[in-house]
Amino acid sequence: MIKPFDDSYFMKRALQEAELAFDTNEVPVGAVIVANNTVIARAHNLTETLNDVTAHAEMQAITAAANYLGGKYLKGCTLYVTLEPCQMCAGALFWSQIDKIVYATRDTQRGCINLNTKLHPKTKMVGGILEEEAAALLKRFFIEKRNLN
Amino acid sequence: MIKPFDDSYFMKRALQEAELAFDTNEVPVGAVIVANNTVIARAHNLTETLNDVTAHAEMQAITAAANYLGGKYLKGCTLYVTLEPCQMCAGALFWSQIDKIVYATRDTQRGCINLNTKLHPKTKMVGGILEEEAAALLKRFFIEKRNLN
Repeated sequence: MIKPFDDSYFMKRALQEAELAFDTNEVPVGAVIVANNTVIARAHNLTETLNDVTAHAEMQAITAAANYLGGKYLKGCTLYVTLEPCQMCAGALFWSQIDKIVYATRDTQRGCINLNTKLHPKTKMVGGILEEEAAALLKRFFIEKRNLN
Repeated sequence: MIKPFDDSYFMKRALQEAELAFDTNEVPVGAVIVANNTVIARAHNLTETLNDVTAHAEMQAITAAANYLGGKYLKGCTLYVTLEPCQMCAGALFWSQIDKIVYATRDTQRGCINLNTKLHPKTKMVGGILEEEAAALLKRFFIEKRNLN
């Protein structure tokens, strides 16, 4: 059976957001939040543009999704994000009670897995969807950044 | 020597913010950020008003302080907050590289200490400043809430 709206489909949308971040000299991380096979929020990292460490893609997507839904809890929703969430974003996802987190590539230094950030007991997390594409974009960003300095 | 601008002075400002939260039916948590003995940001919990789990007092104060300073790092700054920060807020404070966190009362369930959220190595954290006042305000809020339901 063909499943047009699978994890890869939505992660591609998150990767498009990451590319928008790349184009404005932001660490290229993008996110979308999906409910009933519909993207209800999309965002990319804006920490440099906004001069604000809290402006990660996930944080903005959580705020936008809650605004769309008219309520602060993201039950029934899935977050697709191109990089494993950090402590801040995982902590926000804890409060949101989101159903599922799908990330593309690991952040072994500052990601929530190795730092043992507590998720809501109802939240499932899976990784590795379009991992190579997401990791390649991040790698390209940091190589270009290094060459410019 | 009289020290007019001590931790109690600034925590009182944070408590005033918590009272503003209380008055609008928000969990009463308030925060201020101080640089050079001057309050550069003040905020209180707005999660209900904004329908947004990310609208904790600390998150808003971090954004406001960075806006005031024109840069995203809060080096040289101290956060005063009436409740021990949660994982999300401690995660944001990690990214901000803030000098010092002063909290009033512990959150043993969802606070960053028992959940082992990683702070920036340069960040010091102390607690217990106006602890009784902050705890009493929270207790009063939850008792009134229970009686209304």
